[in-house]
Amino acid sequence: MVEGSRPGVVVHLDEADPARQRLALANVANLLADLGPAAGLVELVVNGPGLDVALQGSPLAGDLAALQGQGVVVAACANTLAARGLERSALLPGVHVVPAGVSELVRRQREGWAYLRP
Amino acid sequence: MVEGSRPGVVVHLDEADPARQRLALANVANLLADLGPAAGLVELVVNGPGLDVALQGSPLAGDLAALQGQGVVVAACANTLAARGLERSALLPGVHVVPAGVSELVRRQREGWAYLRP
Amino acid sequence: MVEGSRPGVVVHLDEADPARQRLALANVANLLADLGPAAGLVELVVNGPGLDVALQGSPLAGDLAALQGQGVVVAACANTLAARGLERSALLPGVHVVPAGVSELVRRQREGWAYLRP
Repeated sequence: MVEGSRPGVVVHLDEADPARQRLALANVANLLADLGPAAGLVELVVNGPGLDVALQGSPLAGDLAALQGQGVVVAACANTLAARGLERSALLPGVHVVPAGVSELVRRQREGWAYLRP
Repeated sequence: MVEGSRPGVVVHLDEADPARQRLALANVANLLADLGPAAGLVELVVNGPGLDVALQGSPLAGDLAALQGQGVVVAACANTLAARGLERSALLPGVHVVPAGVSELVRRQREGWAYLRP
Repeated sequence: MVEGSRPGVVVHLDEADPARQRLALANVANLLADLGPAAGLVELVVNGPGLDVALQGSPLAGDLAALQGQGVVVAACANTLAARGLERSALLPGVHVVPAGVSELVRRQREGWAYLRP
């Protein structure tokens, strides 16, 4: 993942409901719009049913790409990929893979990042 | 928002389900009952569908007022108000407005506050 | 609760949906598998409808016992027990009771633990 000494924000998305997935992405957009560079690095970790937003064919692919264009790192959980029999090639362009979404969320908090769970 | 050097607790409510909204308010009440002044400042941030609890006519208006009477700050997200075409006057008495609920949640954590997401 | 100077991870489960309860327990298992001892102490706090997983007869009793066998502390909220008219004897073996689940979550974060809310 992207490393840096600036504190950041890690956003956790693991919901199956498309309305909640849209809300999570809108939250990230609002965070960037409101805080600007003061947000620091922003990383969206998708695991469990939340992985859907980062898969090819996702109805939210455009929204995700727009966030990536603003510097947001999208990190998909390898455990979830494996549990669903999916390869990395099933992911949208630019999506990173982390061994376990939950570990990434812990690691970021230990680095001083804020945690949001929309 | 209320400023202070004491650490506090920020509670995030963004759910549409009335049962979850009731749970979130009950969580805040339990926190105050159990920790007392040791809780520090407690702020309930409502955004997305969670805003409903802070609107005039909310079925939970009485519970919210009781929490405010115990010193809980209720902060509504201006982005959510705007997205729903609502004015500040739609909010219950004493509800504060923050530019973005998510930014407030990040800011508080950076000040050392604990984060709860019921 | 178990005390220690190592940082840990506190996991918050308060959902009624069995699929979400399974996801939360799977998240804990994935965390242990990925981080090993680097996870530090891991505590699963169950309150509200999440208490169900820790009750005698829980369909997830086996999964919970497996996590306990790996050192995970399971902490049930006394407020939830009281609100549902349940005694401690209704809990599965080895489940701890804390006065308020939310206070435990705050206390752990103030000790430097990471917070996960699957």
